[in-house]
Amino acid sequence: MIKFCLKRVAAVLLLLLLATSAQAQQRPQKATWIWYPGDYEIWLGNQMQNRRTERGTFFPVFWRMDSHYVLIDFHKDFDLAQPEEVELRAEGQYNVKLDGKPLTGAPTHLTVPAGKHRINLKVYNQATPPAVFVRGNTIASDASWLVTYEDKEWIDASGKTSDQSGTTWLQAGAWNFDSPEARPSAFKLPTEVRRAAQVERNGQSMLVDFGRETFGYIKLHGVKGKGQVAVYFGESKEEAQATETCETLEYLAVNQPQKGEQTTTLSKAFRYVNIRPEAGVSLDSVSLLYEYAPVAERGKFRCSDAQLNKIWDVAAYTMHLNTREFFIDGIKRDRWVWSGDAYQSYLMNYYLYFDTPTVNRTQWALRGKDPVTSHINTIMDYSFYWFISVYDAYQYTGDKAQVQQLYPRMQSLMDYCLNRRNKDGLMEGLAGDWVFIDWADGLSKKGEVSFEQLLLCRSLESMALCAKLVDDQTGAQKYQQLATDLKAKIFATYWNPGKGALVHSRVAGRPTDHVTRYANMFAIFFDYLSPEQEQQVKKSVLLNPQVPKITTPYMRFYELEALCAMGEQPYVLKEMKSYWGGILDLGATSFWEEYDPTKKGTEHLAMYGRPFGKSLCHAWGASPIYLLGKYYLGVKPLTPGYATYEVVPNLGGLQWMEGTVPTPQGDITVAASPKQLKVKGASGTGTLRFSSKSKPSCKGGKIASKGNGQYELTLEKGREYVVTYQAL
Amino acid sequence: MIKFCLKRVAAVLLLLLLATSAQAQQRPQKATWIWYPGDYEIWLGNQMQNRRTERGTFFPVFWRMDSHYVLIDFHKDFDLAQPEEVELRAEGQYNVKLDGKPLTGAPTHLTVPAGKHRINLKVYNQATPPAVFVRGNTIASDASWLVTYEDKEWIDASGKTSDQSGTTWLQAGAWNFDSPEARPSAFKLPTEVRRAAQVERNGQSMLVDFGRETFGYIKLHGVKGKGQVAVYFGESKEEAQATETCETLEYLAVNQPQKGEQTTTLSKAFRYVNIRPEAGVSLDSVSLLYEYAPVAERGKFRCSDAQLNKIWDVAAYTMHLNTREFFIDGIKRDRWVWSGDAYQSYLMNYYLYFDTPTVNRTQWALRGKDPVTSHINTIMDYSFYWFISVYDAYQYTGDKAQVQQLYPRMQSLMDYCLNRRNKDGLMEGLAGDWVFIDWADGLSKKGEVSFEQLLLCRSLESMALCAKLVDDQTGAQKYQQLATDLKAKIFATYWNPGKGALVHSRVAGRPTDHVTRYANMFAIFFDYLSPEQEQQVKKSVLLNPQVPKITTPYMRFYELEALCAMGEQPYVLKEMKSYWGGILDLGATSFWEEYDPTKKGTEHLAMYGRPFGKSLCHAWGASPIYLLGKYYLGVKPLTPGYATYEVVPNLGGLQWMEGTVPTPQGDITVAASPKQLKVKGASGTGTLRFSSKSKPSCKGGKIASKGNGQYELTLEKGREYVVTYQAL
Repeated sequence: MIKFCLKRVAAVLLLLLLATSAQAQQRPQKATWIWYPGDYEIWLGNQMQNRRTERGTFFPVFWRMDSHYVLIDFHKDFDLAQPEEVELRAEGQYNVKLDGKPLTGAPTHLTVPAGKHRINLKVYNQATPPAVFVRGNTIASDASWLVTYEDKEWIDASGKTSDQSGTTWLQAGAWNFDSPEARPSAFKLPTEVRRAAQVERNGQSMLVDFGRETFGYIKLHGVKGKGQVAVYFGESKEEAQATETCETLEYLAVNQPQKGEQTTTLSKAFRYVNIRPEAGVSLDSVSLLYEYAPVAERGKFRCSDAQLNKIWDVAAYTMHLNTREFFIDGIKRDRWVWSGDAYQSYLMNYYLYFDTPTVNRTQWALRGKDPVTSHINTIMDYSFYWFISVYDAYQYTGDKAQVQQLYPRMQSLMDYCLNRRNKDGLMEGLAGDWVFIDWADGLSKKGEVSFEQLLLCRSLESMALCAKLVDDQTGAQKYQQLATDLKAKIFATYWNPGKGALVHSRVAGRPTDHVTRYANMFAIFFDYLSPEQEQQVKKSVLLNPQVPKITTPYMRFYELEALCAMGEQPYVLKEMKSYWGGILDLGATSFWEEYDPTKKGTEHLAMYGRPFGKSLCHAWGASPIYLLGKYYLGVKPLTPGYATYEVVPNLGGLQWMEGTVPTPQGDITVAASPKQLKVKGASGTGTLRFSSKSKPSCKGGKIASKGNGQYELTLEKGREYVVTYQAL
Repeated sequence: MIKFCLKRVAAVLLLLLLATSAQAQQRPQKATWIWYPGDYEIWLGNQMQNRRTERGTFFPVFWRMDSHYVLIDFHKDFDLAQPEEVELRAEGQYNVKLDGKPLTGAPTHLTVPAGKHRINLKVYNQATPPAVFVRGNTIASDASWLVTYEDKEWIDASGKTSDQSGTTWLQAGAWNFDSPEARPSAFKLPTEVRRAAQVERNGQSMLVDFGRETFGYIKLHGVKGKGQVAVYFGESKEEAQATETCETLEYLAVNQPQKGEQTTTLSKAFRYVNIRPEAGVSLDSVSLLYEYAPVAERGKFRCSDAQLNKIWDVAAYTMHLNTREFFIDGIKRDRWVWSGDAYQSYLMNYYLYFDTPTVNRTQWALRGKDPVTSHINTIMDYSFYWFISVYDAYQYTGDKAQVQQLYPRMQSLMDYCLNRRNKDGLMEGLAGDWVFIDWADGLSKKGEVSFEQLLLCRSLESMALCAKLVDDQTGAQKYQQLATDLKAKIFATYWNPGKGALVHSRVAGRPTDHVTRYANMFAIFFDYLSPEQEQQVKKSVLLNPQVPKITTPYMRFYELEALCAMGEQPYVLKEMKSYWGGILDLGATSFWEEYDPTKKGTEHLAMYGRPFGKSLCHAWGASPIYLLGKYYLGVKPLTPGYATYEVVPNLGGLQWMEGTVPTPQGDITVAASPKQLKVKGASGTGTLRFSSKSKPSCKGGKIASKGNGQYELTLEKGREYVVTYQAL
C-alpha cells in the first residue's frame, strides 16, 4: 500500500513538474493577424495607387491590378500540454474546424483540448483580404501558420474526406497587426497636427505656407456658411497660385450654419495651399494633418561639410515622405509603386530605416499575381529591377522566407521575359513593352538596347542565386547558364573596342555606334568589365562630357555609384554638392524628380508638357543617403543579413565624417578622419579595410597588413575599435 | 437678293432634312450595364456559392475562387451626326475621357460633339465588378463596347501617350441590367409570397408544410417577445423534426416588444419548416417568400401517359428550382456550380427555357481565371464536361461571341489537362485530382479510367471545332490530331472483344477485365463505336443486369440517352416510368440526387453518412425533360443555332404526344400519333424524318422517300405540316 501511495505521489509530482514546465512555456504568445502571403500587400497597393487624382479627376494606373484570393484556409497543428482557451477573429465570413470537424456558427472562442490538434479557419471576403487572428496561451496566429486558396478537401458519398491532396500550403503573410482590434483592412497611416509657417490673407482667401514640402490633409477651422471652398495645392508657391494649372486640388462642399471644422478627403503633397472660399463661406484658420509612415530613422550621417549634411538631411526627409504604405515614386502626382523607383528606395532604406516589411510589401505589390500579361508597370527594365531587388534584399536582410514565398512568381515572370526574347536571344520592345531607361530627350529605345540586356543578365544571375537558396538546383543551373551565355553575347554584340565602351543598342541586326552612359555605368557596379575596360569606360564615358549628360537624380544614382565603385569618391562628392546642392540653392526643401542646371526659374517646375508637372519630392532624389552610407562610411554586407560585412571608409576629401548604418540585428557606427577610424558593429563579423601611409594601430584589435599600404581589421560583435592611422 | 434668299431657304431646308434623317436614327438606344466578360459572372458565382451553410455554419467550396479585375477601361468610338447628351453611371470610382482627354471629376453627364469621338470610362472597384452604364440618343453601352484590364497607356516626359499598344481588347460582358438604377451588384432573384399548405401547432411551436419542395425565406408574422426562434428546415417531414441532424437551420434573434415581422436571412430549400420559439417568444403565423429565377418555360410536353406527364412536370419544377443565378446542383445543400451537374442542366435548358444567359454565366463562373491550378471543381471529368459544353452550347444557341470570349481560357485549361497526361498519353488521377465519374459504391478510380480518356477525347474534338470557329487553324489541327490519336489509343487499350465492351480501366499498365457502364454508354452517343460494337455493347453492357446498376439520375441520364440513340425508346420509356415514377411513388415532389429502389423508408433520405444528407431536389434528377424533347419529340439542331434541325418523332409506345421545343428564334411544335405527325418550326429549316408502313401524305409539303419505309419532309419556317402516315 505504501509503495502504491508513493508511486501515486511520484506520479502526482511528475504531473506537477510537467504542468509547471508546460506553464513555463505558456507565456501568452504574440499573436498577429495573418493572411495569404502577398494578398494584403496587393490589396493595400490597390488602395494606395487608386488615390491618385489629377485636378480632382481619378487617375488610375494603366497596368493590371490584381486582387487577393477571396477564400482562404488557414491552419496549424498544435500539441498542447493542457487544454487551452483561444480567441478567434476573422475579417470576412468564416468557419472554424477543430481536427477537421466544423464548429457551430462563427465562434469567437474555442477550447482546444490537451494533445495534438489541428485548428483550421476558412474565410471568405470579397472586398478585403481574408485574415485571421487567433490567440491563446500557447496558440497564436503568426507567419508559421499554413495557408492555401484551394484545400481540395472533397468527400465521397460516405462522407469520408479525400486523403490524396495536391494542395500547396504557403506560410501565412503578416505584418504588425498584433491585437484583435487592429484589423488589417482598417489600416491607415498615422497623422499629426502641424501649424502653418506663414499665412497671407486676401479677403476670405488665404495662401498658406507650411514652411517646407509636406503631406497630409488640410483642416479648415472655424468654417461657416454654405458653398464651396476650393483648395489648390502647390509644391511651389507658383503652383498653388495657378488655380487653372496646379496639379492637385479639392473642392470642399460646406454647409455649416455654425462655425465648425472640415478636412479634405484625400491626403496630398504640398508646401503651399491656396484656400478660396466662395462668397458666403468664411473660415478662421487652416492646419495640416501631417500623414507619415512611422518608420525609425536608424541611419545617420554627419561630416565636416555643412552643405553635405544639409543634403543628407533633405534626402532623408525626401525619403521619409516617399516611404508610405509602400515605397512610392513621388508624393504629389503618381503615388504609385514603380519598380525602378522602388529599387532605389530599397537601397536607400538599407542605409536609413532598414524597414524590411516595407521592402517586402513593395515587392509583393509590384509583382501582383499570375498570369503575367505585362512587364511590371509595363516597363521592361522594371521587371528586371524587381528580380535584382529580391536577391539584393536577401543579401541585406537575410530574410529567406520572402525569397521562398516569392520564388514561384519570380519563375513565372522570368518565363514571361525569356519568352519575349527574339531569335537572337535578345530583348527588344514588343507591342505593349515600355522601354524606359530614363527621362532623357531623344533617348533611342529602338532595337535591342544594351542596357536592357545587361539588366536581364543580372536578373538571371539573381534567379540563379535565389534558385539555389530555395533548393531548386535545376533552376539554378538553367538560370546561371542563361546568364553566362547572355553576358558573352552582350560583350560580343555591344562592346566597341575603338570607343572603349558598350554601345547603346543594336538596330536591324547591327550595333549602332552611339554611346550612352546607361549600360556602361551598370557594367561597372555589376562587375562585368575587366579592369582595363573599366578604365576605358571611366575615361571615354563617365568622365567624358561629350556623352549626353544625365538630368535625373534617378540615373545619377547609378552614375555616381559606378564612380564610387571605382574609388572616385572625391569626384562624386563634388558632383553631389553641385547637383543636389544646386537643387537646394533653388530653395528646395525636398529633392526633385528631375534637375537640369541649365534651366531657369519656373522652367524647373514643368514636366510632361505641364507647367507644374514635375514632382518636387521624388524618392529617387534621395540617393546621397545610399552613396554616403555605402561608399563613404563604406558599409555593406558580404553575406546575407550582415552575418559578415565590410567597412571601407572613404572620406572623399572630407575632414571627418561619422554615421550609423542599420543592420537586421543592430547598428554599425563608423567615425573617420584622416588620422582615426572608430568602428563598432552590433552583430555579425565585420572587416574594416583601410589604407595608411604609416603602420596603423588599434588597441584591442589585431590589424593585418595586406601589402601596399592596405590593412584589415576583424570586427567582433559589440566591440568598439579605434584605429590610429595616416590616410593616404 | 431673291436668289440669295432662295439659296438660304434651300440651305435651311437641307439642314432640316438632314436633321430629320438624323432624328430618324436617333431612337434612344437600348443601353445596358456592361463589365469585363466573365467578371460579373465569377463575382456573382462567389456570392452564390458562399451562401452554403451546414447547420448554421458557413460551408465554402474547396477549390479556388477567383475574382473580378478591379480596374477596367471601357471604350467605344462613335460617329455622331449631331451633338448628343449622354448619361453616365459607374459602379466604382471612375473617370471619363473624351478623345483621350479626361473630364473633371466623375461626371454623370457629358455632351459629345458631332463627328467621330471616342468615349472611355475607367473604373476601379475592389468589392464588386467595375461596370458602366452609358445612354444617349445614339450612344449606348452594350456588348459592342471594348474592355481591357490593362490599357498600357503610358506617357513620355513630354506628355505624349504611347502609340505602341500591346493591349488585348475584349467585347464587354452584359446581361439584362437595362436601366441606370439596375446596378449589377445589387442584383437579387425576385421573391413572391406563398402561404403554407398545412400547419401543425404544438404550443408556440409549429410544423409547417408548404405542400411541396420549395425555396426561399421564411417570414414570421406577429412575432413578439425576446429570445430566439429556431427554424429547422426539412425537405422531408422527418428532417424538419430532427432538430439535431437536419441539414439546415437558422436561429433568429427576436426582440419585439410589439408584434412584428421577421424574416430568415438566407434563402433555403425545404418543404417543411419546424418553428421552435424559446419561452417568452410567440408568433402568429408563417409565410414563405418564394425565391425564383424569372425564366420562361418555353418547352412543353404532354402525352397519353399520365404518369409520364407527371414525371415531366416534376422534372420541370425540379429544374426550375435549380435554375437560379446559375445552374446549381441542388437547392438544399451545396447550391454550388458543379460542372458535371451544370452540363446536364444546359442540355435540359435547351428543351425547357432556352435561357442562354444562364448557360453563359454558368460557363464563366465554372471556368474562373488563369492560371489553372486545379480541375474545375477539382474533378477531372468536370473539366472535360466544360469543354464539351462550350461547343454544345454553340450548336444549340449559335452564340459565337461566347465561344470567342471563352476560347483563351479553353486553351489554358486544355494545356493544363494535356500537361497532366502520363508517359502513355493517358490521364490518371494525380495528387489533387478528384476522379468522380458517379456516386457508386466500390467504383474504382485507380489507374487510367477509360471513361476519363473518352471525355478527354471528346473535349479535344470540341476544342478543334471551337478553334476553327475562332479562326485558330493551327489549334484546330493540333486538337483534331490529338483527338484522333487518343481515340485510336482508347480502343487499342480498353476494347475487349471477348467482352464486347470497353473495360473500366488500366492499372499498372494493364487493362483490367472489369466492365462498367460509363465509358460504354458515352461511346455510343459520342458515336465512337462501329455498328457491330454498338450492338455488342447494348447486349453485353447496357441491357446486361450483371453489370453494376446505376443508382443516380445523373448517370441514368447518359445510360438512357445511349439507349435512345440506339432507338430503344420503348425500353427507355419503361425505365423512366419505373425509375422516376418510383421516386414519385415515394411521395416526392421534386427529383432526387440519388435513388436506389432497393432502399426502404428513411434510408432514402440518407447520404454522405448523414441521415438527411441526400438532396431531394437535384438538377440532375430532371433529365426526362431532355430525353423526351430530344429523343421522343425528336428535335435537335443540325447546324448551330437551329439554322437547320431535324425532327424525328418517336412515340416509344405512347398513343400520342405533343410538345414544344424552344430555339433561339422561336419554337418548334411537334404532335405525333401513330397516324399523324403535326410539325411547325418558327425559324430555320427543318427536316422531319419518320418511317411509315404505307405511303404518307402531307398537304402543302413534299415528302421524299428514302427507301425501306423511311421518309423525309423539309420544314420551312413558320409553316405547319400535317403528315398522315402509318407508324411501323
